[in-house]
Amino acid sequence: MNQNFIPRDPDFEQKVRQSFDQQAIMHTIGASLSRLAPGEVEISMPFSPELTQQHGFIHGGIVTTILDSACGYAALSLMSADAGILSVEFKVNLLAPAAGERFLALGKVKKPGRNITVAEGELLAEQNGEQKLVASMVATMMSIYGREGIRN
Amino acid sequence: MNQNFIPRDPDFEQKVRQSFDQQAIMHTIGASLSRLAPGEVEISMPFSPELTQQHGFIHGGIVTTILDSACGYAALSLMSADAGILSVEFKVNLLAPAAGERFLALGKVKKPGRNITVAEGELLAEQNGEQKLVASMVATMMSIYGREGIRN
Amino acid sequence: MNQNFIPRDPDFEQKVRQSFDQQAIMHTIGASLSRLAPGEVEISMPFSPELTQQHGFIHGGIVTTILDSACGYAALSLMSADAGILSVEFKVNLLAPAAGERFLALGKVKKPGRNITVAEGELLAEQNGEQKLVASMVATMMSIYGREGIRN
Amino acid sequence: MNQNFIPRDPDFEQKVRQSFDQQAIMHTIGASLSRLAPGEVEISMPFSPELTQQHGFIHGGIVTTILDSACGYAALSLMSADAGILSVEFKVNLLAPAAGERFLALGKVKKPGRNITVAEGELLAEQNGEQKLVASMVATMMSIYGREGIRN
Repeated sequence: MNQNFIPRDPDFEQKVRQSFDQQAIMHTIGASLSRLAPGEVEISMPFSPELTQQHGFIHGGIVTTILDSACGYAALSLMSADAGILSVEFKVNLLAPAAGERFLALGKVKKPGRNITVAEGELLAEQNGEQKLVASMVATMMSIYGREGIRN
Repeated sequence: MNQNFIPRDPDFEQKVRQSFDQQAIMHTIGASLSRLAPGEVEISMPFSPELTQQHGFIHGGIVTTILDSACGYAALSLMSADAGILSVEFKVNLLAPAAGERFLALGKVKKPGRNITVAEGELLAEQNGEQKLVASMVATMMSIYGREGIRN
Repeated sequence: MNQNFIPRDPDFEQKVRQSFDQQAIMHTIGASLSRLAPGEVEISMPFSPELTQQHGFIHGGIVTTILDSACGYAALSLMSADAGILSVEFKVNLLAPAAGERFLALGKVKKPGRNITVAEGELLAEQNGEQKLVASMVATMMSIYGREGIRN
Repeated sequence: MNQNFIPRDPDFEQKVRQSFDQQAIMHTIGASLSRLAPGEVEISMPFSPELTQQHGFIHGGIVTTILDSACGYAALSLMSADAGILSVEFKVNLLAPAAGERFLALGKVKKPGRNITVAEGELLAEQNGEQKLVASMVATMMSIYGREGIRN
């Protein structure tokens, strides 16, 4: 990461962790928030046969699930305390089969903004102590302010 | 759909259904293959609180999961009998919160090809008998021929 | 197009045409605004050897240029009178070589919004009286309000 | 760039430069190939009022034009001598207005492959000796072998 981001919300870590804990899907797929810094988030997930597609690899949509959360929380970590976040759109390139024992989704902010934040993600597969890049994401996130029913 | 596609594989329906049944993730999230025609696939999924993000909506990655499978099987339905399929990349626009009782992912082939097929998908949320468009996908799929370990 | 859009700005046509005329690049590549309706814009461009890539087809970036303007003005046609527009991001699929005598970029709004509008575009190539789909776009547009130096 | 790529074609530089010279659009917009290494290409372009959109910035489609060529030639530089190249699709994020005296499009291969290569690009705007990131691209490129009429 070649940028040093200054978080606008000094309590960004608590805010991100609370929101992550409210994502029921993360519990369902066994994902955890393994690293958190301003503008940068890592989510870990073990392999599970329940998450696979027809070739026995992790389904591209599940790859997307942890990449989207990693990118989204990287973005949220730089937003002001009153901001919530919604994903506007993302693009995923599936570079290699998602085979491995464990998967790491790394999300980093590319360009922060008051309304629009662009983040990038990489999915690494770990097997026998080696890491391999298996997918990448570019995501556009939007800050939302003061909408009822949309928590962080 | 403004194109009439002629499937190259007369047994495309069996091939697609068998492959869908091998996607363990579809069972995990409660998704079923609700319609299948040449170049066109619909996947249905009920709402489940286990699939939600922090606002209580279905997570964008799960939206992507059924859109990707719908687009992928729409593409596979037009491929020759010896072809398997891999998703190369996709882009998803999240147009509205994925709130509802049931979700329909409609995948349609935009441009078939021997090696590259482009498909488009829409995700509809059903609530109180009404349907609302909540997401769209554009996906690039690749035919794979004769690779060991990569079934259809 | 399966939606009927009601423009918020009754003078949307004049606003769009004035803005289009200010896009110097449109004059440079010989493009003109050939159709305009609420949420829908068509831009036409003749073939020119000065716009080609190494195979003699129109370069994908020029295809993108008229698709982006078509999608952008489709979006702008539905915005309020005080709104300007910026493209946030777009994705283009190049489906066939951009060969032909004339090219039509059709932009249509998929989902309008006060801040974010999603539009879709198709590029058709005309040759010997026949049309062929050669590219598609999905674009995310943002309304901008009251920023100095950013006209419509 | 954190990868060292070994080109399969020892004459990749000549091949890329010849192909670039055949892109008439590059001459039209004043772009030149300013740097070339295995898997990495830089294209430079001065500001020109003829390439602008309605706000006086370089049009997003022209930004895309040099990014696409930079990503494409980065990909071609790693392909075998008998391979030509076509862009399958790309996504562009417009991060800031393309204002400046000169623009640099940097294209780098993210994942090479015999059939599919994924590349990433960044567009930098130079003004008063400073550089600013104004756009990013992710592009999927396809190698083509032995098709008549499609040169490199």
